[in-house]
Amino acid sequence: MGLTTAAIISTGTEILQGLYADTNARWLAEQLSAEGMEVRLSAAAPDDAEEIESLLRYAAQRADLVICSGGLGPTADDVNREVFARVFGMALVRDERAVTMMRERFARRGREMPESNLVQALVPEGAIVLYNEWGTAPGFFIPPAEERGRAHVHAPSCALLALPGPPRELYAMFRELALPLLRERIGARRYVLKRVIHTFGAPESEVGQYVHDLFATTADYAYTMLAKPHGIDIRIVVRASSLEEATLRLNELEKETRRRVPQELIYGYDDDTLPAVVAKMLTNHHIRLAVAESCTGGLVSKLLTDIPGSSAFFVQGLVTYANEAKMRLLGVHPTTLEKHGAVSEQTARAMAEGARQIADADYALAITGIAGPSGGTAAKPVGLTYIALADRANTNVQRFVFGGDREFNRMFAALTALNWLRLKLMT
Amino acid sequence: MGLTTAAIISTGTEILQGLYADTNARWLAEQLSAEGMEVRLSAAAPDDAEEIESLLRYAAQRADLVICSGGLGPTADDVNREVFARVFGMALVRDERAVTMMRERFARRGREMPESNLVQALVPEGAIVLYNEWGTAPGFFIPPAEERGRAHVHAPSCALLALPGPPRELYAMFRELALPLLRERIGARRYVLKRVIHTFGAPESEVGQYVHDLFATTADYAYTMLAKPHGIDIRIVVRASSLEEATLRLNELEKETRRRVPQELIYGYDDDTLPAVVAKMLTNHHIRLAVAESCTGGLVSKLLTDIPGSSAFFVQGLVTYANEAKMRLLGVHPTTLEKHGAVSEQTARAMAEGARQIADADYALAITGIAGPSGGTAAKPVGLTYIALADRANTNVQRFVFGGDREFNRMFAALTALNWLRLKLMT
Repeated sequence: MGLTTAAIISTGTEILQGLYADTNARWLAEQLSAEGMEVRLSAAAPDDAEEIESLLRYAAQRADLVICSGGLGPTADDVNREVFARVFGMALVRDERAVTMMRERFARRGREMPESNLVQALVPEGAIVLYNEWGTAPGFFIPPAEERGRAHVHAPSCALLALPGPPRELYAMFRELALPLLRERIGARRYVLKRVIHTFGAPESEVGQYVHDLFATTADYAYTMLAKPHGIDIRIVVRASSLEEATLRLNELEKETRRRVPQELIYGYDDDTLPAVVAKMLTNHHIRLAVAESCTGGLVSKLLTDIPGSSAFFVQGLVTYANEAKMRLLGVHPTTLEKHGAVSEQTARAMAEGARQIADADYALAITGIAGPSGGTAAKPVGLTYIALADRANTNVQRFVFGGDREFNRMFAALTALNWLRLKLMT
Repeated sequence: MGLTTAAIISTGTEILQGLYADTNARWLAEQLSAEGMEVRLSAAAPDDAEEIESLLRYAAQRADLVICSGGLGPTADDVNREVFARVFGMALVRDERAVTMMRERFARRGREMPESNLVQALVPEGAIVLYNEWGTAPGFFIPPAEERGRAHVHAPSCALLALPGPPRELYAMFRELALPLLRERIGARRYVLKRVIHTFGAPESEVGQYVHDLFATTADYAYTMLAKPHGIDIRIVVRASSLEEATLRLNELEKETRRRVPQELIYGYDDDTLPAVVAKMLTNHHIRLAVAESCTGGLVSKLLTDIPGSSAFFVQGLVTYANEAKMRLLGVHPTTLEKHGAVSEQTARAMAEGARQIADADYALAITGIAGPSGGTAAKPVGLTYIALADRANTNVQRFVFGGDREFNRMFAALTALNWLRLKLMT
């Protein structure tokens, strides 16, 4: 048999008040799916013993494995361990190794452990204790009914994994301690493979037209599209009973997608980002880049220097927000600014050429625009943006009118500039 | 009586595969809490009629109002309307106004509506239809049992609100169409007020020491702390049966917090951000600022120019990633770089002074450091960062060793620099 279906429970009143995103649940869903398990429920309950018990009993009916995160702290609102012991008909016992680890943890920080922390060392008798090297509260794993000894008559047959709520602790304990226990017990393993295909340069409706008949979401196949400022992502997930079948299916779908979507729109796969792809091309081509930014205010420089090793190609960036800076640093002529304005083809061109020359760079990108919310006019509306790309021989300028808010317009302008550079380096 | 408790259900297999964050659920939780409702459950189910029906029946036992998002599309995996009609014992009928609106929507885009879309106009008979002006699928509201006519014997007594999944449509339909219906029915209204107090400059443990005995999370009071790269946030939520009581309670807690936490640590409240607070101070004091960045690569400039109106104080930013740029643009002396290195007190000082002088600015900030992951040595480890602040008379340099990854170190360095400027402007 083994475990094939899973339910995820997060506890915390603040989640139900909308104060925090429940990042643990999403992360756990991703991990369990990657292990081939089918997640049938993901739910959050407040720090209230009755609600948690009720939800746990419901989840136990729907899945072979229930994972609960949170509620293992030392304060009165941390009721999970008591609820779990009651539902599974187990006594709570103090785990002395957990006590020792907690005392040592406090000692290393030169502090005495408050006695109130001792409650965190209580675990259901017969559970496998998961010793926490990343925080104080231990987690525990109650194996499925067939592995337990004397079974409590009303105890659910599912397995229960209890993990502390802080994400750093939860991630580490799941990976290091829980996953080996689960893998021994996951039945009828199914293999899950994912591929994300990143595009930039065409709107969602256009990308959709190429692939619309491939869209579907079933338990074994998900083909979806997501619009992000960083472009339109196509996401493919396949599940199959063998790795070969899953690989074959994924490769077929990827190939079919690549056959349909124009090659120049696809900038990368999976964890690739547009700045990282451009950074790699610049490094490989030994190209020295300079950047001059007005409306994007340093964002292009920031995106490129996010990449480790960017000193190989990034010479310098000039954030010339004020006109005086455009003149002083980039040598933009006062009459250019007077006659055409700071947001104009002519100013963009002069910025790029100035930036390239003073850095003695191979290429320079320049951006000037009106990010909003104010500063727009009928002739030069919010979103109007000029991007210039200069090399040692030529300078080209493109004009755009972006339709988002300030944050979107700045990000989209920066990525559009990087994408232009990518296309130039492709040829 | 009226509605006092709520449950939120999101449907979508991709949520349970961890592919997307369930942003609708968090947003709805926040809205319902602000209306004084108590959210008792937030759960996601796959696009599977059996799972959705089961979860809906469970949620109906826990709450007076169940809100379901998603699953109203035109494809085969959109099963929600059928499930809802079955559970509430209502027939599905075609709403002709919804059909007309959908046809008009397609016509406006110059397209014929595919007949497959007609299924989206089916709604449970007797439900209040929520006409969707922001997308295709209408939503609907099934009022609580006491308002319904002939009641189906197994139908839950709760009210049901069904909304389409795309966030833009869901937000608009909830605000414009659903909220008025809910407000008429929310019983024993409770008033919810929130306050976030933002601190920067002290670790979580220190902030915690000032306020640890105020921590609690109950249905009527939540006092929590959250560590973010942008500092330590203290969050207070109070609920009370009158606005006066809630206001009084919140003000007391805020006052008590301010009495305990050193004033210089608190940079703002609620939606305030550190860059925005600094931007406002610079604008009010008519101060011209220049920035020179090495390891942060434009992030300080980006954060400041995120703020609309930053041209009032931001003169220019120089991203001098390479040593040649530090010499050429900032006039850092070659022997300073040779003798002390690019990451040194001396280089930081020279960068700030150079940046201030060439911009003729009142203040200049400079940052040089080793963001990682590589580039560290025993003497100069990853995370080592020098920040310099120059004014027309003096230059001061501070040394830090940040302990995070590249992204964290860069963000924390940028915010530490801005916070220093804030403290300087406070005096």
